[in-house]
Amino acid sequence: MSKDRLIYLPLGGAGEIGMNCYVYGYGAPGKERLILVDMGVTFPDMDGAPGVDVILPDIAWLEERVDRLEAIFITHAHEDHIGALGLLWPKLKKKVYARRFTATIGRLKLEEEGLPLDAITTVEARPAVVEAGPFKVQFVPVAHSIPESAALIIDTPAGRVVHSGDFKLDRSPVVGEPWDDAGWEAIAAERPVKALMCDSTNVFSPHQGRSEATLAGPLAELIARAPGLFVATTFGSNVARLKTLAEAARAADRSICVLGRSMKRMLAAAEETGVLQGFPRVVTPEEALEIPRRNLMLLVTGSQGERRAASAALSRGRYLGFEMKAGDSFLFSSRTIPGNERGVIRIWNAFSEMGVTVIDDMNGLYHVSGHANRPDLEHVHRLLLPDMLVPMHGEHRHLSEHVRIAHEAGIAAAVAVNGTMLDLTGETPAVAEYIETGRVYLDGTVLIGALDGVIRDRIRMALNGHALVTVILDENDDPMGEPWVELMGLTDQGKGGRLLNETMEADLADYMERAGRKVLRDDDRLEEEIRKVVRQVAMEEIGKKPEVTVVVSRLVAE
Amino acid sequence: MSKDRLIYLPLGGAGEIGMNCYVYGYGAPGKERLILVDMGVTFPDMDGAPGVDVILPDIAWLEERVDRLEAIFITHAHEDHIGALGLLWPKLKKKVYARRFTATIGRLKLEEEGLPLDAITTVEARPAVVEAGPFKVQFVPVAHSIPESAALIIDTPAGRVVHSGDFKLDRSPVVGEPWDDAGWEAIAAERPVKALMCDSTNVFSPHQGRSEATLAGPLAELIARAPGLFVATTFGSNVARLKTLAEAARAADRSICVLGRSMKRMLAAAEETGVLQGFPRVVTPEEALEIPRRNLMLLVTGSQGERRAASAALSRGRYLGFEMKAGDSFLFSSRTIPGNERGVIRIWNAFSEMGVTVIDDMNGLYHVSGHANRPDLEHVHRLLLPDMLVPMHGEHRHLSEHVRIAHEAGIAAAVAVNGTMLDLTGETPAVAEYIETGRVYLDGTVLIGALDGVIRDRIRMALNGHALVTVILDENDDPMGEPWVELMGLTDQGKGGRLLNETMEADLADYMERAGRKVLRDDDRLEEEIRKVVRQVAMEEIGKKPEVTVVVSRLVAE
Repeated sequence: MSKDRLIYLPLGGAGEIGMNCYVYGYGAPGKERLILVDMGVTFPDMDGAPGVDVILPDIAWLEERVDRLEAIFITHAHEDHIGALGLLWPKLKKKVYARRFTATIGRLKLEEEGLPLDAITTVEARPAVVEAGPFKVQFVPVAHSIPESAALIIDTPAGRVVHSGDFKLDRSPVVGEPWDDAGWEAIAAERPVKALMCDSTNVFSPHQGRSEATLAGPLAELIARAPGLFVATTFGSNVARLKTLAEAARAADRSICVLGRSMKRMLAAAEETGVLQGFPRVVTPEEALEIPRRNLMLLVTGSQGERRAASAALSRGRYLGFEMKAGDSFLFSSRTIPGNERGVIRIWNAFSEMGVTVIDDMNGLYHVSGHANRPDLEHVHRLLLPDMLVPMHGEHRHLSEHVRIAHEAGIAAAVAVNGTMLDLTGETPAVAEYIETGRVYLDGTVLIGALDGVIRDRIRMALNGHALVTVILDENDDPMGEPWVELMGLTDQGKGGRLLNETMEADLADYMERAGRKVLRDDDRLEEEIRKVVRQVAMEEIGKKPEVTVVVSRLVAE
Repeated sequence: MSKDRLIYLPLGGAGEIGMNCYVYGYGAPGKERLILVDMGVTFPDMDGAPGVDVILPDIAWLEERVDRLEAIFITHAHEDHIGALGLLWPKLKKKVYARRFTATIGRLKLEEEGLPLDAITTVEARPAVVEAGPFKVQFVPVAHSIPESAALIIDTPAGRVVHSGDFKLDRSPVVGEPWDDAGWEAIAAERPVKALMCDSTNVFSPHQGRSEATLAGPLAELIARAPGLFVATTFGSNVARLKTLAEAARAADRSICVLGRSMKRMLAAAEETGVLQGFPRVVTPEEALEIPRRNLMLLVTGSQGERRAASAALSRGRYLGFEMKAGDSFLFSSRTIPGNERGVIRIWNAFSEMGVTVIDDMNGLYHVSGHANRPDLEHVHRLLLPDMLVPMHGEHRHLSEHVRIAHEAGIAAAVAVNGTMLDLTGETPAVAEYIETGRVYLDGTVLIGALDGVIRDRIRMALNGHALVTVILDENDDPMGEPWVELMGLTDQGKGGRLLNETMEADLADYMERAGRKVLRDDDRLEEEIRKVVRQVAMEEIGKKPEVTVVVSRLVAE
C-alpha cells in the first residue's frame, strides 16, 4: 500500500486570469479524498470564442471522482470564483461553504438555475472550522475589492496549507476587515505553513499597493468641483468603492441613484448581510430625474465597456430617461482589463462627442487595485514563511515571475498550470501527474467543448465567408437543373463586376457536365470536387478561399 | 461670384487613430483647387472587421473631383500615412511628393501593384518649394519614430498653414534631424501661421516627451548583462531604435541578425537613402546559427503580436533554425497599441513557458514614444502662435482635449472629425459642409464598402452560427423528399441528446405538410416561414437564434 499524500490540482485559474477552480486531495494515491476551492468563469471574446456566453472550467476529472469529493469552498463572490456555481454544481451536488456575503450571492445563482438554496452553508470566519474528510478548513478574512473575501487555511494530516484567494494588504479597506499582520503571524505560529498557494495577479506591479481609503480625498474633491451631472462606474461588487463614491456625493450635496442590475444586487446583498452600513439613501431613477443635475450622482455598471451595461447605454443616448450632456462628468473608477480597451474607448469617445468630461483612473488617483503587488507578496512570504509556494491566479508569465521571487527568498516553488497535479507531501512541490483539462463554453443554453470544432467553424466563417452549394441528382446520378450557389459574408461582385455566385454556378455547371460517373455516385467525392471548384473561382475572382458547404440532394422515384 | 476660400477636409485620421488622409482646397466655393496630404491605412480586428486585410479611407468625394486635384503629399512612410498609396493612387493618378526615404518606401508600394514608379517625385526639405495650383508646399524635417518625417508648410493666398504630421520634440533623435526651435520660430516670423493642423496622439500624456537618445544607456546595460541569446522587437520602421539596439549589441560583443521582411526593407531603404549610416554589419540567419548564443542579438518584427511576424513565430517554436530557450531574453522595445494586448500577451506567455526572460518597455526605460506629449504640444502652440488650431491624428477624445488646451492658451480651435469641411478663411475655423466619408475594406483582392453588409453577415455567423436548409419542390409546388438541414458553427446536439438538425428537419417536414398552396408557391414567404421554424427549434433546443439560409429548388419537367 502506498503512503498517503497531499495533492493540489488546478482545473482553472493557473496559466490564465479567470475561471478559478482548484482541487486539493489527501489520501492514498488515486484514492485521495478531495475538496474543491472556487468555481469561476471567464469571459469570451470575439477573437477566441465568438457568440459564446461564458467560459467554464472543464471539471470532467472531478465528475468522474465525485464520490471522493467531500465539499466545495468559495473564497469570494467575484464571477471568476463563483460564476460557474449555478452551471456546474448539478454535476457535483456536494455541500458548498462560504462566508455570509458570498453565500448570499451564491444562493442567487442557485435560484436562477432552480437549484436547492440549502446547498450552500454559511460559515463564520476563523476560528470556526469546517471539517471535510481529512481536511479542516478555516476562512480568514482578507481585504479585496469585494466584501468578505477570504483566504483559506486548509489543515491536513500532511500539514497546513494556506490558499490565499484574491487579496490585498489593505489596512483601511473602507468596507470589511483590514489586513492583519499579527493575525497571520499567529496562524503561522500556531502551525507552520507547509504550502502557500498564492494570488499572482499583480506580481508585475513594482510598488506597494495602496489602500482603498486613499481614494476618499481625491474622489471627494473631484465630485465636489464637477459642474453638472456626475456619473461614476466601477465594478458593482466593489462595495467599498461605491461607499466612498456615495459619501463623496453626499458631501457635495448630491443625491445618489444606482443604474444597473448587478450593482443593485451587490449593494442589496451587502446591506442584507450587514457588511455595508451607513450607505447613503439611494433615490429611484424617477426621483433622480426631478433632481437638478448639479445635485445628482449616478453610480452605473459597465466599467469594462460591456455593450449592454448602463455606461454603454448612456454613451449611446437616452437611457431610463437620463441623457448626458456638455458639462457633465463621467468617471471610470476602474482599471481596464486587457482585452476590454476597445469597448471602454468607444464609450469615452461617445461621451467626448457629447461634450462630457471623461476622467479615467488617472494612474491610481481614482482607483486602486484589489490585488497584492510585488512588495506586498514579498511581505506575505516573510510573514508566513511557507515551506513551499505555488503561485495561482495568473498567466504563465505571472506564475513564473512569482516562482522567481519565491526562489530569491529561498522558498521552494513551482509553476503548476491547469492540469498539473502536484504532490505537496515532501519538502518541495513535485509533479505527480498531468491531467487533461480545458474549457467548456456556455453557448445559448448548452455546454460545448472548446475543442469540438463548433467555435472553430464560426471563426472560419467570420474570416473567410461561407458559400453554400446545392446540387440535385436523379436516380441515375444525373444532375437535375444547375448547381445553385448562395453566399454569406462574401462580396457579390468578382472581377469586372461579374456576380460571384453566377461565375461559380457557371463553373460548377461545366464541372458537373464533365464529372465522371464514379464521382457523381459518391457524395463525399462530389462534395470535395465541388468545394475545390468554388474555392478556385473565389480565389481568382476575389482572392479569398471561403468555407464551403455542399448539399447533394438525390431524388428517388417514389 | 463668391469669394475664394481656404478649406480643410479630413477623409481619414480625424476621430480615429490611423488611416490618415486630409484634403486642402483653395478657390471659389465648390471650385477649390485641391491637394491631398497622406494616404494611410488602418488595421482590422476580429470584433469590427473579421477576415479583412486592411482598411482604407473612402475617397469617393475626392475621386468625383479628381480634375480639381493638383497633387498628393506624403509626410512619412508609416502605414497609417502611406499604406493606401498602392491601392488608391490608381483612382487619382496625380503626382505624389515625398522626401527621399518616404519616396523610396512609396515606390516599393507602387511596384507591388505594378504602377509607374515615376508617380512619386522626391522633394528636398525646406527651403525647397513644391508649387501645386494655389499652394506652395515645403517639407520641414521633424523627429518621429521613422526617418525623414516631415511637417508641411502649406502657403496659400489666404495665409500659411502648418500641417504637423506625426512628430515629437526630440533634440537628439539618433537618426535624422533634431527638433529645431529656432527654425520653427523663423517659420512663424517669416509669415504668421494662420492655422496649425496638429498631431494629437499623445495629448493625454502629461509629462514632457523623452528623447530617443535616453534609451542608449539602459539598453546597453540590459543587453550586456543578458546571459543567453538576446532578441529584441520594435517597429521595423523605427530605424533609430534599431541603430541604438545594434550599437548596444556590438558593445556587448554580439553579432546582429535581422529577421522579418518589413524590418529588412526599412533598413535597406534607410541605408540606400543615406539616412542611416554606420549601422553595424548584419549577419545572415545561416551565419547567426553558427554564433554562440551569448554573442548574438536578433532584431525581429512583430512587436504588436502579429501572428505571422517573427516574434510570434519564435514564440511558437523553431523559426528559421532558431529556437528560444531558458536563459534567453526577449525585449519588447515598444508600446502595445490598444487592441493588440492579447496577441502580445500570448507571445509573452509562450516565451515564459520556454523559460525565456521577457522584458517589456518597463514604463519607458526601453521605449519612448514618437509623438509629442501634452507639454510638448503646448510648447509648439507657443512657438508658432497660430491664429487657429485644428487637431488631427486622434480619436474624438484626443481632438476634444487638444481643443480644450488650445482654448486655454487663447487659440481659436475646433474639433473636425472625418467628413467635416472647415472654412479656414476667417478668424476662426467654421464648418462649411459635412461630407459623407467612411471606410473601405480590402478583402482578399477586392475593395468592399464598410456598410454594404458583407462584414455584418460574417459577424452574425460568428456570433449565431449558420443553418442551411434545402427544400425541393416539383412543378406543382409539392415538396419532393424532406427538407434537409446542415449546421455550421452550431452544436450537433440539442436537448436530451437529440441531433439538432434532425429535430429541425422533423419540424420542417411537419411544416411543409401543413403549409398552404399560397406559401408553397411563393419563394420569399416560404423561406421566411422555414427560417421561423428553424429559429424556433434552435431557440428551444439550444437557446440561440442562428442565421438561416434557405435554398428553395424548384424542379421543372424538362
